[in-house]
Amino acid sequence: MKADSRCLVCTANQALRVLNKYVRSEEEKWIRLQDMMKIISELKWGLKPIEMGEIVYTEIEKIVGKRDIYEKEKKRSNEMALAILEKIKRAIKDSADPLYDAAKLSIAGNLIDLGTPSWDEERVYNKILEILEKPFGINDYETFKEELSNATSVLFIVDNAGEIVFDRFFIEIMKEYNSSVQVFVAAKSKPIINDATVKEAKEIMDGVATVIDSGMTIPGTIVEKSSDAFRKLFFEADIVVSKGQGNFEGLDGEENENLYFLLTVKCAVVADYLRVPEGTMIFMKNIKKR
Amino acid sequence: MKADSRCLVCTANQALRVLNKYVRSEEEKWIRLQDMMKIISELKWGLKPIEMGEIVYTEIEKIVGKRDIYEKEKKRSNEMALAILEKIKRAIKDSADPLYDAAKLSIAGNLIDLGTPSWDEERVYNKILEILEKPFGINDYETFKEELSNATSVLFIVDNAGEIVFDRFFIEIMKEYNSSVQVFVAAKSKPIINDATVKEAKEIMDGVATVIDSGMTIPGTIVEKSSDAFRKLFFEADIVVSKGQGNFEGLDGEENENLYFLLTVKCAVVADYLRVPEGTMIFMKNIKKR
Repeated sequence: MKADSRCLVCTANQALRVLNKYVRSEEEKWIRLQDMMKIISELKWGLKPIEMGEIVYTEIEKIVGKRDIYEKEKKRSNEMALAILEKIKRAIKDSADPLYDAAKLSIAGNLIDLGTPSWDEERVYNKILEILEKPFGINDYETFKEELSNATSVLFIVDNAGEIVFDRFFIEIMKEYNSSVQVFVAAKSKPIINDATVKEAKEIMDGVATVIDSGMTIPGTIVEKSSDAFRKLFFEADIVVSKGQGNFEGLDGEENENLYFLLTVKCAVVADYLRVPEGTMIFMKNIKKR
Repeated sequence: MKADSRCLVCTANQALRVLNKYVRSEEEKWIRLQDMMKIISELKWGLKPIEMGEIVYTEIEKIVGKRDIYEKEKKRSNEMALAILEKIKRAIKDSADPLYDAAKLSIAGNLIDLGTPSWDEERVYNKILEILEKPFGINDYETFKEELSNATSVLFIVDNAGEIVFDRFFIEIMKEYNSSVQVFVAAKSKPIINDATVKEAKEIMDGVATVIDSGMTIPGTIVEKSSDAFRKLFFEADIVVSKGQGNFEGLDGEENENLYFLLTVKCAVVADYLRVPEGTMIFMKNIKKR
């Protein structure tokens, strides 16, 4: 999908959010944001939103340094997701279709920003319970379930910290459903916003999946820019699960029949593109066999 | 008050809203917005938000032409406000303090964008009833009431279409409270966003106030750039009422003891400046006599 003019303003706003964390002086923040807006004002028409993110986050890194900007938030998100999972996992395991409910939890984890400081565990937990009641706006789950029963390999492309805890649980349930499936988890090479890195993914996925480095340092995945290991699995795995909007923005349009997009629609641009309201949960096969 | 970096993104967003109305091609919109962002990226630190608006709206006019961009919305707003006023005016006139309730209605009209296409009259009416229950966040009404009882002249600086209908009602009640007061209404020279123009103000204020041209063509009022007639009244009137955030942004800081700011706080920047939450209704004397 192609970015439109709303993405220009949104990208400026993302830049401001990072600057807010690292630049104290209001005047310096003004000047730095203007530098970013100048760069944004020169981005060529036809880019994917995620490619805009790549350019702008690379520039921001030059200002704030190569640090793990959201380290604290990511840690807090993971801890909160673990606590919530403990409360909820029994009910999912005992439900009529644990695979379906675990997928839903994994996608619900993508909706709420678990790192939002003002959200306590109770509030996130209640929000998750509320989301779990909602249907998918696009629903290819039954096809996925059928294909999973015959699969031997799954590539699971993770998105943010926090939700990755629910992803692990989803993968566990996938393996209970088909015990012969091997799961590979692809995570970011290095910190970018609140995306889960290889290091973090290895901790969370210990014992359930083999973690590989996607080669990506942007908040999404673009095949041409990914690592060899990623590309091999992307085209050879029986099933590829892509979590989140950033990965969707990068991988949409790929000729891959085994690819499923699991995401919560977080902005009006993607909502318009998929013709669903913002906030909709999506479980969508990339190219349906007809 | 000085703009901060949030105003850079907000100004870009305002530009996009106008472009959305007048530019059809997505690619052209992208390029035009980038032109605006380039201009925004060169605005100097220390400007008032309203001065940023002046520069950007002047540039946008070069693209979309000198037309009355919000003509339809303004007409619809006025009609809706008239219908709502008919329903509500009896209760206000019969209340314990009609002047207070009429002021509240005038400020409430500033909160809701009466021109929002998806809002029907019923919804706006209910919203107004809800708002009328809320207290002012800053409340110098009693001082105003006392000063009004001794005043012979009031300059009332109007803001948007729609709410101007409630302003007229407020002025009527002011004149019932003090029948010897003469009221002058200052409105914009020509169309800018949904601000009421001199032409529109003359229609609405017929029979209750003398309308003057403020000389302003930006969505707010700056004394140095205003007309001679405005400046004279601004410094000589016994009371000056400034409606809305745009006028507040421009007139805040003026040495004028007779000035009252009546507004609903519509953004985080002004909310931080006044130390109140967004959405707060303000009835504030500019400089309190100590």
